[in-house]
Amino acid sequence: MDCELCAQPGGALLWQSAVCRVVRVAEPHYPGFCRVVWQAHVREMSDLPPAARRYLMEVVVAVESVIRELFAPDKINLASFGNMVPHVHWHVIPRWIGDRHFPEPIWGQVHNEQAAARPPVDDATLAAALRRVLDKLPEPA
Amino acid sequence: MDCELCAQPGGALLWQSAVCRVVRVAEPHYPGFCRVVWQAHVREMSDLPPAARRYLMEVVVAVESVIRELFAPDKINLASFGNMVPHVHWHVIPRWIGDRHFPEPIWGQVHNEQAAARPPVDDATLAAALRRVLDKLPEPA
Repeated sequence: MDCELCAQPGGALLWQSAVCRVVRVAEPHYPGFCRVVWQAHVREMSDLPPAARRYLMEVVVAVESVIRELFAPDKINLASFGNMVPHVHWHVIPRWIGDRHFPEPIWGQVHNEQAAARPPVDDATLAAALRRVLDKLPEPA
Repeated sequence: MDCELCAQPGGALLWQSAVCRVVRVAEPHYPGFCRVVWQAHVREMSDLPPAARRYLMEVVVAVESVIRELFAPDKINLASFGNMVPHVHWHVIPRWIGDRHFPEPIWGQVHNEQAAARPPVDDATLAAALRRVLDKLPEPA
């Protein structure tokens, strides 16, 4: 088996627990864009035991809250596709009115070629903010 | 306030509870494509109380399971954007290798212009399958 998310973190590692990790995606138009990756190779959300997927979604929503706090986006986009890498992972993406693809998903057409890159937050600050909320979540038994 | 998902179901209504509904999206390339819509106007997942978002995700995953059973897709795609309609709703989309946009999200580029529409399942059958799993889920207090 040759799975990219089994072999590599999939971005700059910001936080991890025994069962999942949060990585930052390098995307100058979408600073704060994170991926939440389940550590084990599981294909679909419905393949995870209920307690595991509840925990995973609590992590996803906690990451969403941290991104809202640090980056003040106009909207959050959440997505789990896995068409290319069928290993459960969630995209948590801050969006701004007038950003490069707004109002489409970032996989859609570019609507604003002139959109400038947005101010990033350094990884240490982002990691510390994530730790504050994620270290409190009880892991599934 | 002029919200499309407050004013209309957003697709053919297949199931609903006091707090959320499941509608079928008319998309011949992606039969089984459903939306799970929160009934109240809430902007982000992190704006929902924890019990409410847990219930909503259990509904989303249950819909995923029904779609896997009835349509045997190669992959499931889940997404919550709300850039155009900032009212919490989830897209649950069956995907097949070689379908119109595979391996991209359906909001991306068309990769297979020749892809044929796929066999649908009638709404009554789909609604009955959804009822069997969704009627069992305890609603949030």
